Amino acid sequence: MAQNKLGKRSIRFANPVAVRAWASVAGKKEAEGPLGAEFDFTDNDTYFGQASWELAEKAMQEKALDILAGKAGMRKQDFELVLSGDLLNQCIGSAFTMRNTGIPHIGLYGACSTMALSMLTGSMSVSGGFADRVVAMTSSHFAASERQYRFPLGYGGQRTPTAQWTVTGSGAVLLCPESKGIQVPCATYGVVTDFGIKDAANMGCAMAPAALETIRTHLEDTKSSLEDFDCIFTGDLGQLGKEMLMELASREGLQFGGKLMDCGNLVFDNTAQDVHAGGSGCGCSAIVLCSRILGNLQSGKWKRVLFCGTGALLSPTSTQQGLPIPGVCHAVRLEGEM
Amino acid sequence: MAQNKLGKRSIRFANPVAVRAWASVAGKKEAEGPLGAEFDFTDNDTYFGQASWELAEKAMQEKALDILAGKAGMRKQDFELVLSGDLLNQCIGSAFTMRNTGIPHIGLYGACSTMALSMLTGSMSVSGGFADRVVAMTSSHFAASERQYRFPLGYGGQRTPTAQWTVTGSGAVLLCPESKGIQVPCATYGVVTDFGIKDAANMGCAMAPAALETIRTHLEDTKSSLEDFDCIFTGDLGQLGKEMLMELASREGLQFGGKLMDCGNLVFDNTAQDVHAGGSGCGCSAIVLCSRILGNLQSGKWKRVLFCGTGALLSPTSTQQGLPIPGVCHAVRLEGEM
Repeated sequence: MAQNKLGKRSIRFANPVAVRAWASVAGKKEAEGPLGAEFDFTDNDTYFGQASWELAEKAMQEKALDILAGKAGMRKQDFELVLSGDLLNQCIGSAFTMRNTGIPHIGLYGACSTMALSMLTGSMSVSGGFADRVVAMTSSHFAASERQYRFPLGYGGQRTPTAQWTVTGSGAVLLCPESKGIQVPCATYGVVTDFGIKDAANMGCAMAPAALETIRTHLEDTKSSLEDFDCIFTGDLGQLGKEMLMELASREGLQFGGKLMDCGNLVFDNTAQDVHAGGSGCGCSAIVLCSRILGNLQSGKWKRVLFCGTGALLSPTSTQQGLPIPGVCHAVRLEGEM
Repeated sequence: MAQNKLGKRSIRFANPVAVRAWASVAGKKEAEGPLGAEFDFTDNDTYFGQASWELAEKAMQEKALDILAGKAGMRKQDFELVLSGDLLNQCIGSAFTMRNTGIPHIGLYGACSTMALSMLTGSMSVSGGFADRVVAMTSSHFAASERQYRFPLGYGGQRTPTAQWTVTGSGAVLLCPESKGIQVPCATYGVVTDFGIKDAANMGCAMAPAALETIRTHLEDTKSSLEDFDCIFTGDLGQLGKEMLMELASREGLQFGGKLMDCGNLVFDNTAQDVHAGGSGCGCSAIVLCSRILGNLQSGKWKRVLFCGTGALLSPTSTQQGLPIPGVCHAVRLEGEM
């Protein structure tokens, strides 16, 4: 049996992996939200100085990489591997960011689970000795997502009460083989779970079963319980998906108490900012991770967090063909210095 | 320094990784091509019994997984991790294949480089001890690609002379921690290279510089030369991209002689089958790998091959916005029993 497998579908990083630095870049609406003061960089220009929203996504990722290098005290060229993906068709946000940088690139697709997926896969590369300075990164952009997935913004379509608001932002972490600082001791691979939900304006509920499946598996595989964690972070189920997860969990006797937090529910003031069910998009869990979560782990406020990236694996084509929305959830455990 | 890094951007798999089994599934046109007799399964129905071409892609991946399990003498449920991606927006071919299988899934996006990318990343997970039975897989479908990237088939658009024909097919390999059988001793990460080519109907030339960069780096990093290989396989530059690669290489003093082969140039009879510059798509290099390449390594005809997956990281949106086409190339070395 593989020596770093834990239980059914979790893995341990026997050679230590630390999150040495992190960076968050966000848009205007995110800056006005509850976490606004905690982001490294925000811009009131939704184009981030570019000619299109798609290129704005590239600009956000580039900015995140620059800030990350600065915070880690190195040059961008010192990064040995970048694992990244985004929501744009064919992940062009990530491809154009990496263009002519000379940095090796592994492209990932996990929809809104991409931050956790890139950290899980990146931690394998660090712990396995395949690279020393590994970046896990993702991004999303509200306006680029709306026109790709739903309607052009100029159409002025009404959003449903269950809809979530795609975060404009990018987050990046630097993973290194170090036993000091915030550690990534283990993780749980996601499986693609389909509950038969077909409403593309209610993705939180489509993802909730995958989140429950992965949280439960992580606890079983690592022989731990909710008491061992300060928080379980999902990202991003939004308000409705979070309620559904709590309901599904309680049917199985799993009571989160106050420990369950959702990145989509934290990033905006859902009512005052009129975002309906909360935030979403790859960038959502990424910027919450790279501000509040890693910040509180660094300050010692939290000691152990399970970061569960949730993704809805639909496309406009699958929705138009009447297919349901499969969900996935990858989980990464994060521990502050004990 | 990471103990499994080799040179600038290559890695070695110190704990052995073997390709224990492989499977190829292909469509009617591919069955009529020069490799037709070597595929495990072909179907004259371009829908593969499904209601849409997108679902046909799912059916091909499912068939590839079934055949792979059978050839490896195990059940599909015994696979511990599947790394896969495809060309459909949001990689729904892969997502719907993995739906409710219970098998952990890492979603990748590397355009037509996905087969090599999934083998590289999958080999890290095997060699690093994170899973024992790992599947690397991809697929593409001509009709689904045409309507997503170019024109609806019913429109009857003329294809340019430089265009390539997206392969309808899926290939999958099973990677295991074994020192017997076909080995994956090392690999080279791709970097995203932009030569400024903007013609989306000439993707072979957009990818050729990335292929050269990765082949040269692999030889330098592993201190080897072309003499050490029976073949260098690119996939899939097509006829024009292959010629451009040879031209660029010869300017740097690298003469491939007869050793350079391209999956896009092998899979069809370019003239008789009217495919213009050759085959393309994630499935192209996948089905050539999972028939001719691994077959000749198993029979002992070839001893050592460099499998270079090339991808054009464009989207219709980036093309419409006048952006160039970045290319990437990931390389995986394959060795028969010596």
